[in-house]
Amino acid sequence: MNQQDPYLLTPGPLTTSATVKQAMLHDWGSWDDDFNAMTAEVCRRLLDVAGGADSHVCVPVQGSGTFAVEATLGTLIAPQSRTLVLMNGAYGQRIGKILDTLGRAYVAIDKGDYRPPRGHEVAQALAANPDIGQVVVVHCETSSGILNPIGEIAEVCRQAGVRLIIDSMSAFGALPVNVAELPCAALVSSANKCFEGVPGFGFAIVERELLAASAGQCHSLSLDLHDQWQYMTKSGQWRYTPPTHVVAAFLQAMKEHAAEGGVDGRLARYTRNRDRLVAGLRALGFRTLLVDEWLSPIITTFLSPHSPAFDFGRFYNAIKAQGFLIYPGKLTVADSFRVGCIGQLHDEQIDAVISAVAAACQELGLSLPVAAPAETPDNLETA
Amino acid sequence: MNQQDPYLLTPGPLTTSATVKQAMLHDWGSWDDDFNAMTAEVCRRLLDVAGGADSHVCVPVQGSGTFAVEATLGTLIAPQSRTLVLMNGAYGQRIGKILDTLGRAYVAIDKGDYRPPRGHEVAQALAANPDIGQVVVVHCETSSGILNPIGEIAEVCRQAGVRLIIDSMSAFGALPVNVAELPCAALVSSANKCFEGVPGFGFAIVERELLAASAGQCHSLSLDLHDQWQYMTKSGQWRYTPPTHVVAAFLQAMKEHAAEGGVDGRLARYTRNRDRLVAGLRALGFRTLLVDEWLSPIITTFLSPHSPAFDFGRFYNAIKAQGFLIYPGKLTVADSFRVGCIGQLHDEQIDAVISAVAAACQELGLSLPVAAPAETPDNLETA
Repeated sequence: MNQQDPYLLTPGPLTTSATVKQAMLHDWGSWDDDFNAMTAEVCRRLLDVAGGADSHVCVPVQGSGTFAVEATLGTLIAPQSRTLVLMNGAYGQRIGKILDTLGRAYVAIDKGDYRPPRGHEVAQALAANPDIGQVVVVHCETSSGILNPIGEIAEVCRQAGVRLIIDSMSAFGALPVNVAELPCAALVSSANKCFEGVPGFGFAIVERELLAASAGQCHSLSLDLHDQWQYMTKSGQWRYTPPTHVVAAFLQAMKEHAAEGGVDGRLARYTRNRDRLVAGLRALGFRTLLVDEWLSPIITTFLSPHSPAFDFGRFYNAIKAQGFLIYPGKLTVADSFRVGCIGQLHDEQIDAVISAVAAACQELGLSLPVAAPAETPDNLETA
Repeated sequence: MNQQDPYLLTPGPLTTSATVKQAMLHDWGSWDDDFNAMTAEVCRRLLDVAGGADSHVCVPVQGSGTFAVEATLGTLIAPQSRTLVLMNGAYGQRIGKILDTLGRAYVAIDKGDYRPPRGHEVAQALAANPDIGQVVVVHCETSSGILNPIGEIAEVCRQAGVRLIIDSMSAFGALPVNVAELPCAALVSSANKCFEGVPGFGFAIVERELLAASAGQCHSLSLDLHDQWQYMTKSGQWRYTPPTHVVAAFLQAMKEHAAEGGVDGRLARYTRNRDRLVAGLRALGFRTLLVDEWLSPIITTFLSPHSPAFDFGRFYNAIKAQGFLIYPGKLTVADSFRVGCIGQLHDEQIDAVISAVAAACQELGLSLPVAAPAETPDNLETA
């Protein structure tokens, strides 16, 4: 990688390895067997990581992660079926917006900006709405950086006999998931998150029988996962032109993921990044939105200091000038900014980010008292 | 470029320059100003090439070209409006399939596999169906390689006061189009065709007023061009994660397109490729599906020889072993194969392809009589 490129401390697109990018230095025929073999290997590897080789299929879909979420919901949710959407941030709300656009009925549990939806709340909602066909939850809600408790939610769904669909965009690849054991009817993610590929496609890991029963349900031709799956099964090819270079980069990224120890290895590095980052910024006086228990190893939200000297634009640019891009906040309740832990970031980069933040504070004339571990607008419930 | 990569004689993904691929050796923050500036420059350049700077806007959309076509139709066509679809191959038929999925009413003029839809036929259909709101036509129908007469069709639409939407996927960038003069309400294309970028997004050049009046019409959240345009206008960013590396490659590709002399320069090279290729393969005894008048400078369909020695799979592999990928046929009326003229192909590669085809014929034990210029299943009308 060109060392002059800034490091991306964002929830993806993220900083990828030089070798992942170099995998894009070839042109592939999208019709040719050589490319089809890459697609097949990507799908096989993804199914293995998800623990779904016996029960599920992997269907990639062109576009961003949101395209894959919309494709999954549009393909799998029958027009007359009602859905329970768990919301605690922008991505849960976006799922509601997709269902609104598709004209699919849903009820929501909206926990606001940063509180986790809990199993007992899901159980209550399912009991009160016995016609619910599926629950949709965001695994890591990057609005706040919270890691939602999908285990307890899956257990409630299993007991109620209701399908679970997980938007695991920012978590799959770094957080352990076993779709067969959870169980989970569909898990959606994308190329440019914890597998550390480049953006251009997403994918869904879907129960084979459910997908087979979903023909003709999708509201869109391009986003029809059933059609994509059928065509790919028959021909080995994507139904419409795939982002060939992005697929080649993703295969390389998956090999590097495996070489790092798979999900366990990646989780260990990201957790280490997060702990180092949070400790470093707390030492500078910054406060995390969440108590430690709910911090994901993906991205952390820090509250903007209550100081007239703090201006996010200036702060961002001062850090960017030192070679790091951080991420703006997305909360409605409090001014904040976010710093990601994922991508090709190691101790060296995390330490340099902390130094860059310290230098930016100095540049802005910002001096902060050393902070308590977390400062939430009110008490956050504990598990 | 790695010289061991096969050359792609396909209608895209195609062989790109080494410098286009090298533009992907950087990671970009999709939220950052540096990336937003690239998006803005891409859109500005595309509008200029289309002659739409004063009247139209350019809206990119993630995914393949079909995603961009569906986004354009879903966003611009009002639910109650009827459409006239001109079909003469797989891509025209796909437009009908998209409208079927969207539940938008349409009538079709279907000319079969390789005949051009003519102005007088469109005029008749519009006269017989006065409630038609828009006509949709494919510019270069790569099923047969035919270049459809969009000028005479646009003139008929203008006279009838009906909007024209052009799927110019495989033509824009190499065939001159001026959306303001035609006129054309929307023109759709993608990154990996005549601009010689890599696949991962498409775009629409849309009349500003028409797009402004299209809020809330789209059947899909991800594919809503109006929403994408509004968000991009406000923030400079794509609404959902863009394929950052693909966009960077496309900007480089557009610079190389301009350096080659823009549309004129590219048309000249592609035409030269086509003429050289057709002459070479005719000299070997192959026949083109179309008479010269309708041959596009994009891709040419050759009829499979009537010989028991010809097997497309063996033929393809024999040519592939020499470093070139050709394309299978897509006709229903006759066995055929296709050879593309677009991408980083110059005299040297075209000559080498002709030699590779000659060697493949020898390998298959295929000896052909020298052919007439074209052999169509029956007489093709002339302009």
